[in-house]
Amino acid sequence: MTAPAAGSKNLILHEVGLRDGLQMESRVVPLEKKAAWLSALLESGMDIIQAGSFVHPVKVPQMADTDELFRRFTKEKRSGAILSGLVLNEKGLERGLACGVEMFCLGASASETHSRKNTGMGTDEAVLRIISAAKAALAAGKKVQVSVQSAFGCGFEGPIPEERVLKMVRAYLEAGLKNVSLADTAGHAHPAQVTRLFGAVLALDPGMECACHFHNTYGLGMANIFAALRAGVNSFETSFAGLGGCPFTKLAAGNVATEDFVHVLQREGLRKDISLDKLLEVARDAAKYFGREMQGFVYKAMPVP
Amino acid sequence: MTAPAAGSKNLILHEVGLRDGLQMESRVVPLEKKAAWLSALLESGMDIIQAGSFVHPVKVPQMADTDELFRRFTKEKRSGAILSGLVLNEKGLERGLACGVEMFCLGASASETHSRKNTGMGTDEAVLRIISAAKAALAAGKKVQVSVQSAFGCGFEGPIPEERVLKMVRAYLEAGLKNVSLADTAGHAHPAQVTRLFGAVLALDPGMECACHFHNTYGLGMANIFAALRAGVNSFETSFAGLGGCPFTKLAAGNVATEDFVHVLQREGLRKDISLDKLLEVARDAAKYFGREMQGFVYKAMPVP
Repeated sequence: MTAPAAGSKNLILHEVGLRDGLQMESRVVPLEKKAAWLSALLESGMDIIQAGSFVHPVKVPQMADTDELFRRFTKEKRSGAILSGLVLNEKGLERGLACGVEMFCLGASASETHSRKNTGMGTDEAVLRIISAAKAALAAGKKVQVSVQSAFGCGFEGPIPEERVLKMVRAYLEAGLKNVSLADTAGHAHPAQVTRLFGAVLALDPGMECACHFHNTYGLGMANIFAALRAGVNSFETSFAGLGGCPFTKLAAGNVATEDFVHVLQREGLRKDISLDKLLEVARDAAKYFGREMQGFVYKAMPVP
Repeated sequence: MTAPAAGSKNLILHEVGLRDGLQMESRVVPLEKKAAWLSALLESGMDIIQAGSFVHPVKVPQMADTDELFRRFTKEKRSGAILSGLVLNEKGLERGLACGVEMFCLGASASETHSRKNTGMGTDEAVLRIISAAKAALAAGKKVQVSVQSAFGCGFEGPIPEERVLKMVRAYLEAGLKNVSLADTAGHAHPAQVTRLFGAVLALDPGMECACHFHNTYGLGMANIFAALRAGVNSFETSFAGLGGCPFTKLAAGNVATEDFVHVLQREGLRKDISLDKLLEVARDAAKYFGREMQGFVYKAMPVP
């Protein structure tokens, strides 16, 4: 009944709750619980699952067991989704290579202030570092995605000039890094901006792949996802239960909930192969574990029959 | 910087929180509080404000003082927005005409089950009653909007055939009723469906005006609003603080929050004349009054600068 939207072919769903979701939580989730959620997410049929980040364990204690989590789920021990990991630098890359990360996600912020708070470096330096590490990951035969954080606005700096974002994307493309994600770290994106910026980015290189990552600070996450989908973006980063937020950015609310997005994709006939039941099970378990109402909608209602 | 979206000219914002929002609340809001919220909403610059419904006071005690609220704010005593009222039948129309309603909103449900639970009548009979009352309101020199409730699906019946909706709209148009709202009473709408159904409705009569009304049960309210905007819909019904839901329908969550919609319209350059500050004041006061976190997003954050 429903014609697929433009640019909706081969949609890739990237679950980032175990990383972008949990890093925001002050309660450190034990390894067994993370492993249970990761198992269920693998069973759901999601395409890529980000299991954690390789940051300093003192800086982000929630991510201290990322290496161990990967070791439990290396390709030899399971089937299904690609497991991705976030790395900020060469040290993180080394750790990720050692424990079986299949796809490396690396990013720099388009906001100078956010970049310095997050990494201690300005944007230009951070981009060079990211490119260097990303090329090393490619050379090691891994999948790689590079991102522009705060691409649509910054809680510290406010609006981010689009040329700053395009400049970063050009630098990635020139380095041969063709899989680029734009992250709305602070949740400032609005649909017209999403249409315009992704249009400009996708025009840079017909061979590139674009991903998007929206936070729901202003209630626009899902509307922005649909704007990105129409613009030709084909990879979508969401978090189970709508977990998420960046500890180094002011005012970031959660990601769009994975189960909410999968629910509407099923209703629109765009992806019918993912188990919504399994995702709802994880969302309900997360709500129980954290003891609060989560930001996802569908887990509170019954899916539309 | 932002080009207006297609169909975005002359957007009409219709605040329905005092009716669709409050009717869901078990705590009866006293007249003085309603009057304070209505005053602030008038100051905000919204185009139309629905102050209440004319239903039986025993059936919906929350609406028992609707007549008195209208009498306090008749056109002679104020300037600004059009005040609308919801009526279900001739008795309601009489009450509305007596207390100064300027725009009458009347509707019937496309779901037979919802219609019977809501009014005791099936859809066909309800449409005839609505048309009769709507024509009487037009004859009295009033603005009139007729609606199709449960136009996108029903909590009792599930999917609603689009032909049922189109049949009701044709009946309205043949009766000379050109201002038609489609309400997603249960929150089942998804963007592709919104595009398709409003496209079919707007093709029926180039002289008609279309309004939309979305509930956020599955987290899709804002995405659906943007789909409707692109389809050519120019009137939008939202509730301050995201209040809302239908007491006769299972599982309906709140409306899209007015302040969230106004915030993004400002950011997109589509409506810059409405006071977001005033709307945020009302949303914050509602959160304080009801003693809970409301569904709106922007009132919890700071507006994007």
